[in-house]
Amino acid sequence: MNRIPLERKVLSENDRVAAGLRERFREHGVLCVNLISSPGSGKTSLLERTLEVWPRSTRAAVLTGDLQTENDAGRLRRFGFPVKQITTGGTCHLDAGMITRHLEGWRLEDLDYLIIENVGNLVCPASYDLGEATKIVLLSVTEGEDKPLKYPSIFFKAELMVLNKVDLLPYVPFDVEDAVENARLMHPAMEVIRVSCLTGHGVREWQTWLEHRRHLFLQSKEQPVA
Amino acid sequence: MNRIPLERKVLSENDRVAAGLRERFREHGVLCVNLISSPGSGKTSLLERTLEVWPRSTRAAVLTGDLQTENDAGRLRRFGFPVKQITTGGTCHLDAGMITRHLEGWRLEDLDYLIIENVGNLVCPASYDLGEATKIVLLSVTEGEDKPLKYPSIFFKAELMVLNKVDLLPYVPFDVEDAVENARLMHPAMEVIRVSCLTGHGVREWQTWLEHRRHLFLQSKEQPVA
Repeated sequence: MNRIPLERKVLSENDRVAAGLRERFREHGVLCVNLISSPGSGKTSLLERTLEVWPRSTRAAVLTGDLQTENDAGRLRRFGFPVKQITTGGTCHLDAGMITRHLEGWRLEDLDYLIIENVGNLVCPASYDLGEATKIVLLSVTEGEDKPLKYPSIFFKAELMVLNKVDLLPYVPFDVEDAVENARLMHPAMEVIRVSCLTGHGVREWQTWLEHRRHLFLQSKEQPVA
Repeated sequence: MNRIPLERKVLSENDRVAAGLRERFREHGVLCVNLISSPGSGKTSLLERTLEVWPRSTRAAVLTGDLQTENDAGRLRRFGFPVKQITTGGTCHLDAGMITRHLEGWRLEDLDYLIIENVGNLVCPASYDLGEATKIVLLSVTEGEDKPLKYPSIFFKAELMVLNKVDLLPYVPFDVEDAVENARLMHPAMEVIRVSCLTGHGVREWQTWLEHRRHLFLQSKEQPVA
């Protein structure tokens, strides 16, 4: 198969564009986070809860990816923050070029947070750097504790696992400790926040995590680049 | 981007291998089904219930795909049917070459059913023909009713949608009629079976569907190929 070399070429071109984005985010102090999960793990619901509790003065914007439909952008625009939908057609992941194009018309100097909701896919998005400061993986308690072992790449790269839909724990055979242990087999320093977008449980902790993460990001910005 | 032409080449090589598989399945009267869904929609659980209720005399075998781990094959082998795990490494879908290699050592003349559990991914597996007679998509009620609109390709190609985890309907904001309507927007003739692998609801209907589908397959086998 002569597929691998071209894939490498596509990825290294993506890395080049992503490095440019990362430099722009760094320059303007924009914390960019890349949310990755299976379809239906609750990325959009988590963002709805987040935008709902954030003060309107929060300088945040959202890019949300899907193969088709503007549904998610519609759901998120209600809260008054800038939101753009990226529809990829058939493509199974976002890439740095898509992010660059969809940032046009937004001034990074007006933003503190850029949240990217990737296409619902636990595999391919893990390979495409979008210039983000951090990758965050969502796992819902309806999906099974062994997902970190079966889809190791994204769990290896993510800094935080949001364990979502914990309101359903009484009704599903899901062992939280096993899931966390599996995630930490892939990434020993993995942080974990338990969330229910239905009840609001954990949303405040997630919001605080984001604020703290931006604080760390700004500190690192003051360090000279290695 | 010069990615598209190579992707076409890879796909057409896959189509060639898949056509060979389809001819072999046809010759031996093996109904091959390709189960596709997000990670955690319950493909393995559905297969556990299926193998559990099938008489041991059923001539069935399973190939189960994951990026990593032999977990699913371990879960499925308990029932005494031939099961092989396909671990793809980083690859986000099964392809026809993987199926060909993993069929080695099995005699197709001993089989009536070959069930393939694809890698958990609602996007990429839809593009790779495995020589199957039919694609089946699983959607769990925890995933949201608009998934058929957001991931149109697999819903367009699937003959049956198994709506799984219906035991959770009292606890999730999910509208079954909306989901079915969305699936039929993509594929007007989509059949739908509601299943709970926890309670066993719908498992008998699914089993009957498979038997009936094999009956149709054998009938079509008697027709000359167009």
